[in-house]
Amino acid sequence: MQQVHKQEFNIGICGLGTVGGGTFHLLQTKQDEITRRLGRVLKISHVASRRRNPALDLADIRFSTDVFAVADDPQVDILVEVMGGTEPALPLILRAIENGKHVVTANKALIAVHGNEIFAAAKRKGVTVAYESAVAGGIPIIKALREGLAANSIHWLAGIINGTGNFILTEMAEKGRSFPDVLKEAQELGYAEADPTFDVEGIDAAHKLTILASNAFGIALQFDKVYTEGISKITIADVHYAEELGYRIKHLGITRMTDKGVEIRVHPTLVSAQRLIANVNGVMNAVVVKGDSVGSTLYYGAGAGAQATASSVVADLIDTARSYGDMSRGNPGNVPSLAFDSLRTDLPVLDIEDIESEYYLRIAAKDQIGVMAQISQILTNFGINIEALIQKEPDHGANGDVVVPVVILTGKVLERRMNEALVAIEQLEQVVDKVVRIRVELFDGEDS
Amino acid sequence: MQQVHKQEFNIGICGLGTVGGGTFHLLQTKQDEITRRLGRVLKISHVASRRRNPALDLADIRFSTDVFAVADDPQVDILVEVMGGTEPALPLILRAIENGKHVVTANKALIAVHGNEIFAAAKRKGVTVAYESAVAGGIPIIKALREGLAANSIHWLAGIINGTGNFILTEMAEKGRSFPDVLKEAQELGYAEADPTFDVEGIDAAHKLTILASNAFGIALQFDKVYTEGISKITIADVHYAEELGYRIKHLGITRMTDKGVEIRVHPTLVSAQRLIANVNGVMNAVVVKGDSVGSTLYYGAGAGAQATASSVVADLIDTARSYGDMSRGNPGNVPSLAFDSLRTDLPVLDIEDIESEYYLRIAAKDQIGVMAQISQILTNFGINIEALIQKEPDHGANGDVVVPVVILTGKVLERRMNEALVAIEQLEQVVDKVVRIRVELFDGEDS
Repeated sequence: MQQVHKQEFNIGICGLGTVGGGTFHLLQTKQDEITRRLGRVLKISHVASRRRNPALDLADIRFSTDVFAVADDPQVDILVEVMGGTEPALPLILRAIENGKHVVTANKALIAVHGNEIFAAAKRKGVTVAYESAVAGGIPIIKALREGLAANSIHWLAGIINGTGNFILTEMAEKGRSFPDVLKEAQELGYAEADPTFDVEGIDAAHKLTILASNAFGIALQFDKVYTEGISKITIADVHYAEELGYRIKHLGITRMTDKGVEIRVHPTLVSAQRLIANVNGVMNAVVVKGDSVGSTLYYGAGAGAQATASSVVADLIDTARSYGDMSRGNPGNVPSLAFDSLRTDLPVLDIEDIESEYYLRIAAKDQIGVMAQISQILTNFGINIEALIQKEPDHGANGDVVVPVVILTGKVLERRMNEALVAIEQLEQVVDKVVRIRVELFDGEDS
Repeated sequence: MQQVHKQEFNIGICGLGTVGGGTFHLLQTKQDEITRRLGRVLKISHVASRRRNPALDLADIRFSTDVFAVADDPQVDILVEVMGGTEPALPLILRAIENGKHVVTANKALIAVHGNEIFAAAKRKGVTVAYESAVAGGIPIIKALREGLAANSIHWLAGIINGTGNFILTEMAEKGRSFPDVLKEAQELGYAEADPTFDVEGIDAAHKLTILASNAFGIALQFDKVYTEGISKITIADVHYAEELGYRIKHLGITRMTDKGVEIRVHPTLVSAQRLIANVNGVMNAVVVKGDSVGSTLYYGAGAGAQATASSVVADLIDTARSYGDMSRGNPGNVPSLAFDSLRTDLPVLDIEDIESEYYLRIAAKDQIGVMAQISQILTNFGINIEALIQKEPDHGANGDVVVPVVILTGKVLERRMNEALVAIEQLEQVVDKVVRIRVELFDGEDS
């Protein structure tokens, strides 16, 4: 049987918000160049959104207010889901798959939480669900993990994968501004939502890290097991002490393969100021990936925005059209949804207490002789090394006491041991506040 | 007709040097993980090299001293060419293609010079020639350009794509050592060849840039039109003056789309010390790509070495096996060799005199009143702005004269105008040496 290769692919776009509008615009304005790359045409044939966007020229394009009309349109080859949320995105994507359509989605929360179900349905029907734009916007990091580094066992990866958080931390570090002050500006600039929880409490980053971890290690998506800590408690004092020690505070998503299981965690992290990733500023994203063959590689770019995200949505469309030259179903040669043809089920996700890390500690102590000796003794009792220590000028504590900020960088220790040590330190009569504890990431001493 | 999908791909490796040995080792030690990713097996079935390498276990593997035996072996599905050079690599690859085999090669010089012929032959036979490892070692930069950024018109890209050169410049900057001194160490460390011309005169970088430019813009490979200038004339004085002005000197490959044509050029370049790429040190590589949708993205990693290069060779093997699930020939859905299904032939490669750039100038002038005024006047006459100027303490020139080093950063100007201005400046009686001229790259003010 001679295969007949389609000369034109019909695209259905569901959602005309920021990313949907950007995708629409890109497909329209770049049609010639895309055709020159692909040798065939990507044609928008159907668009659905609650409201017609008067800025978009929908001549010759079917328009529906019901997104399911796109999933049920026999003309549509590839459905683009750029609405966000779970309802109706999840049933919509499942319907499209059931109807034998390929799907491209930018929906990180949906993939992180419902991806296993979606990918299983896609595998049964032999269609692709592509989601490059769901992680780190325009940076082709999913492609790098699934394809470019396919010869590697990934040891770990660490990324700045939330631009809002990085903008806030950059402003705090560069201009000495406080967290609430910068957050307010980020909201005014449109970088942060009116309810900033998803960004500043790390939930958005946790969604993306869930997806990265699965692609790095070939494990099912397990969003509910990700440890997530935001940046809302980072103070300018900690930013300055970190700097004094040669570090910057970045909000990192880190996932690592260990002998005991997989770490998947999002939290503020001290990173040596010498590293490239410590110098990724403003709203930009970057991911460092450590593979056993390639060593450290780093991928940097815009993690959000209509155009950068649409860049990845359209790359996914081109990929899908290239892979499915004849749109035949069930091509087993295609790239697996989560990088591996078969996922490992023997790898537990570690509880945060079971990770090992170096730590930054800031202890507010009453200025009394002997307090340093007591703190040191406690750390020693728990087997924790002091790698660096700064004792600052006395300052005034919350209740008016004169307190001395003591800043310590520790050696590597099990987090459970560190928690026990902190309980003991906080029980000291001279320690007046909860100890501030921020994890430090040394990246195994690797470059970047 | 039911397609039958191969469960096993037979790999033939030609060459068992550094990269060949690394590829052999990686395929052998990673067989389980590769199978888990691919769902099928990559099996080394035939190896050819002039000498048997006693360190490699060739049990169950056919061995030949004639590489053409691999190209003619009907068992072999994919031929890996990791010998380097043109003879016999070129006829070998053409023979493999003629025999309907896919090819993976790490041979940058061969692709840069003979790629057009090779890709045309591959297209006729409907086979793939993959070459990710030919550029920037383990960094998946070809994949990023051809696939990840496929929705973008690329405006320009700039890369540190020769690790030896970057190692030398890094040592000069960080330790104040001279070029010949560091080159000698690089040779002792094995970073540089006994004949270092290819690395330090920019030929190796020009090969890689040729390939990057074609993938960025969809033009034929045109190695003979690349402007190439090495780092052997960079002095420690220039490194220091650059630093004083807030810049680092990097050996960059730059290619840019302009209204008049395409720039493809390799030369030492001043880059603001604030940029990520200015902070890529030692033997590491990095490429910044500016796309119209995505903005600036950067890719960083090891550009050489047996393991990093083998990482890309094996990624190409996995890619080829994924794309050609049934190894059927002529799948038009595959990624085009040079990113575009049809190449543009209307774009001239610009002569270096037709580029526009900012410049760093170092002028050795006799310490006489009025020389600065004369130099300024000449620059003004040629329409060249002075953006920054340092006049240093008097020093002793080559012939014992007391000379004043004058360092100037200029605004943007056509290189032809700059050359004319330099002729005029060098004719001044007070100017005692040829003017040192290094191009400055501002990256359109983009990030990274």
